[in-house]
Amino acid sequence: MYHQTVTEFKKMLTNLDGLMVKAAAHADHRKFDVNNYVGMRLAPDMYPLVKQIQSVCDSAKFCASYLSGKQAPKHEDNETTWTELRARIKKATTCLDEMKPEDFKNAATMKVSPKWAQGEWLPGEEYVTEVAIPNFYFHMAMAYAILRHAGVDIGKMDYMGKVNFRK
Amino acid sequence: MYHQTVTEFKKMLTNLDGLMVKAAAHADHRKFDVNNYVGMRLAPDMYPLVKQIQSVCDSAKFCASYLSGKQAPKHEDNETTWTELRARIKKATTCLDEMKPEDFKNAATMKVSPKWAQGEWLPGEEYVTEVAIPNFYFHMAMAYAILRHAGVDIGKMDYMGKVNFRK
Repeated sequence: MYHQTVTEFKKMLTNLDGLMVKAAAHADHRKFDVNNYVGMRLAPDMYPLVKQIQSVCDSAKFCASYLSGKQAPKHEDNETTWTELRARIKKATTCLDEMKPEDFKNAATMKVSPKWAQGEWLPGEEYVTEVAIPNFYFHMAMAYAILRHAGVDIGKMDYMGKVNFRK
Repeated sequence: MYHQTVTEFKKMLTNLDGLMVKAAAHADHRKFDVNNYVGMRLAPDMYPLVKQIQSVCDSAKFCASYLSGKQAPKHEDNETTWTELRARIKKATTCLDEMKPEDFKNAATMKVSPKWAQGEWLPGEEYVTEVAIPNFYFHMAMAYAILRHAGVDIGKMDYMGKVNFRK
């Protein structure tokens, strides 16, 4: 479960940062302020990019925290600039870097009770499959969709990242 | 791995069909042809809804086929209407219904070689984490994003579906 969550989420956060690098190049090429992306949304009653990225980060951070039993560091949702948003991703990956596979030895069966579940819980394995993974990819994909819709030259392979196929 | 893929993908395909039901209600309310959604895209060089839905379906079908060693049924990408698209989802769930947990007993370690990998392969466990899951959720989320962007009254809980929290 460590690899399914920590390793993979870390890779995806790196891919997300890569999408932001391409988005910044697009802004530079078109000569607009890169911070213009921060508040963009796909619909007026939908989270803007800043909140999608905060949510991807928190989704990974809280998942790792719940499964390891370690306290999640608090990250204020106060980013307003592109630079701050990239730093937020870095904070999330740093948090994942501190997790070790042995921290997850009881992860499959432990009772996971996210704050918003108001005391209700799921076994770790179900939490990963039914909550953490779909939720993480939801916000990751919405960030992708906002940038793609904004005209950034990114494709699914930028989202997926490198896969270690064997010959 | 059966639950991570077959069970969860089946649930998500049901959720996707639920998004389509809400989209149809929106079309009905606004008095436009529900088939107008089929060709919608978030960007002119991006797959339209029809292809996103075909891709979600195929992602689930091929994952189950590779991991079980069973032959995947062929589904032509020839849908042009809303009704045909919903039928395509049904075909994918029927294919998943035929998979049994015992078909997956060697799934974690088996060599998975998707057609597009041109003979290269991954162990089943890595394939699920690094390819099947991110790819499935990518197209699922893009279908969601297209409908959400089109004004359909759906939220993340429609995408996530019911989670069996314990008290």
